[in-house]
Amino acid sequence: MKLDKNTKILILGLGLMGGSYAESLTSHGFEVGAIARRQETIDYALREGIIKHGRAEIDPEYIGQFDLLNFAMYPHAFVEWIEKYQQYIKPNALITDVTGVKCSIVYKIQDMLRPDLEFIGAHPMAGRECSGVENARMEIFEGANYIVTPTDKNTPEAIETCKELGRIMGFRMIAELTPEKHDEMIGFLSQLAHCIAVSLMVCKDSHHLVDYTGDSFRDLTRIAKINDEMWSELFLLNRDELVKQMDLFSEKFELLRNSIANGDRETIRRMMRLSTERRKYFDVKKEDDES
Amino acid sequence: MKLDKNTKILILGLGLMGGSYAESLTSHGFEVGAIARRQETIDYALREGIIKHGRAEIDPEYIGQFDLLNFAMYPHAFVEWIEKYQQYIKPNALITDVTGVKCSIVYKIQDMLRPDLEFIGAHPMAGRECSGVENARMEIFEGANYIVTPTDKNTPEAIETCKELGRIMGFRMIAELTPEKHDEMIGFLSQLAHCIAVSLMVCKDSHHLVDYTGDSFRDLTRIAKINDEMWSELFLLNRDELVKQMDLFSEKFELLRNSIANGDRETIRRMMRLSTERRKYFDVKKEDDES
Repeated sequence: MKLDKNTKILILGLGLMGGSYAESLTSHGFEVGAIARRQETIDYALREGIIKHGRAEIDPEYIGQFDLLNFAMYPHAFVEWIEKYQQYIKPNALITDVTGVKCSIVYKIQDMLRPDLEFIGAHPMAGRECSGVENARMEIFEGANYIVTPTDKNTPEAIETCKELGRIMGFRMIAELTPEKHDEMIGFLSQLAHCIAVSLMVCKDSHHLVDYTGDSFRDLTRIAKINDEMWSELFLLNRDELVKQMDLFSEKFELLRNSIANGDRETIRRMMRLSTERRKYFDVKKEDDES
Repeated sequence: MKLDKNTKILILGLGLMGGSYAESLTSHGFEVGAIARRQETIDYALREGIIKHGRAEIDPEYIGQFDLLNFAMYPHAFVEWIEKYQQYIKPNALITDVTGVKCSIVYKIQDMLRPDLEFIGAHPMAGRECSGVENARMEIFEGANYIVTPTDKNTPEAIETCKELGRIMGFRMIAELTPEKHDEMIGFLSQLAHCIAVSLMVCKDSHHLVDYTGDSFRDLTRIAKINDEMWSELFLLNRDELVKQMDLFSEKFELLRNSIANGDRETIRRMMRLSTERRKYFDVKKEDDES
């Protein structure tokens, strides 16, 4: 499929991410429709001009118009939607998504899909610490990464169209990973980071500590403000990989803890030197991007 | 002691923190001198105009001129210096410091000090991810917290002078804590955060992950770039308290880990709701400050 001004795009689920997709794609001249659970969401998006039309119900005729469908719902709702309503999708349409875990979704969807339809998984690594269409901003994609997760079932053409979508919305980097590699990476870089932030924040009632808090604690807990419904679902959908990454972290944390308890300064310093060395790459990369 | 334009201030140790003190106090009209290990450091500070004079050696006559001495050295070097050279300090001078741990330093210094001298501990909670006088910037104090840690041995006058010093340098909040409360607080808010960042960064060679890294991982590991000599000393000087805080974190982290492994979604969500609730206070506070 070639993306052009005649491509009609349907966004399913109009929250922070779906709304941001809608705003970006509308601003790039596409005809964007949406399906949301509540009519107020559709009304808001119409008022803001980020969609051309929308429905808060299942309207087979409406669904059947679209060439490209982007699912921005909770993972279980996405799977249920495909089970129940894929019959209404236009023949040969392309389907993609924004789901933050891949193995447990991609294979399931591809296995149940009509043979004329194609699903290519994608993960826009962008977000804000809030939710809902009112918080949607297409600017969140600037400088962010967009990961396409093809399988054996995907055609080169669909992979290219999916990447093109990411490029159009202004992502900094468009990458391709297997669903397995994606889930390992996201388990470590994102989910583990969120587990750490949540655990640190629940350690104690730190209300009285607010006045003493420097940037370190603030930075580490920024993502402790978390949508519990969404993230608990994502954690459990990537359970094995996430537990593996958490155990890896615990092992290093315990090593440091025991080195401190035993006064083993050389091990503490060795870990610090290694962390300093490794962290430098992240700054170099950032500076490269900015220059 | 009343701080005025006739107060002569000596900074001992001219690194990032000592240099930032020197710059700030000079800009506020004080006569600031310095003692550093290397002559190049003194030369640099003179060239930059952040000190009026300085020495790279022990000069009893020079030391004897100053009314207020601020120690910005490694903790063990601070203790050694007092042991060896306190005889040269001007009668009735006031001594303060910037050391990041208090119990293991404050009592030791106060116990060994000449009876006419007074030491009042302070901790400027500011810094940068770099070191050395070339990186000194008085702006790091803006919006930061300054904690004074008096004991029974301190006079109300010295406590007030020490607080005044923090106000002059532009700290956002001047607080008073016992050395014990300080070390508990700093063990949790700062040292534990650094332990987490270091442990996360040494988990794996994440060089190939740089391209996928969103803000979460970057935020959590920013402080993993760490001065291993300084921080290993600070960790070990606060060993018991830090290990206690690390164990508290591990307990919560393991609870989350086991809830994920067992598919106990309700416990995961409860922890997330609590972390979200508690993290809100930190944003509210920040917004208050900005408005």
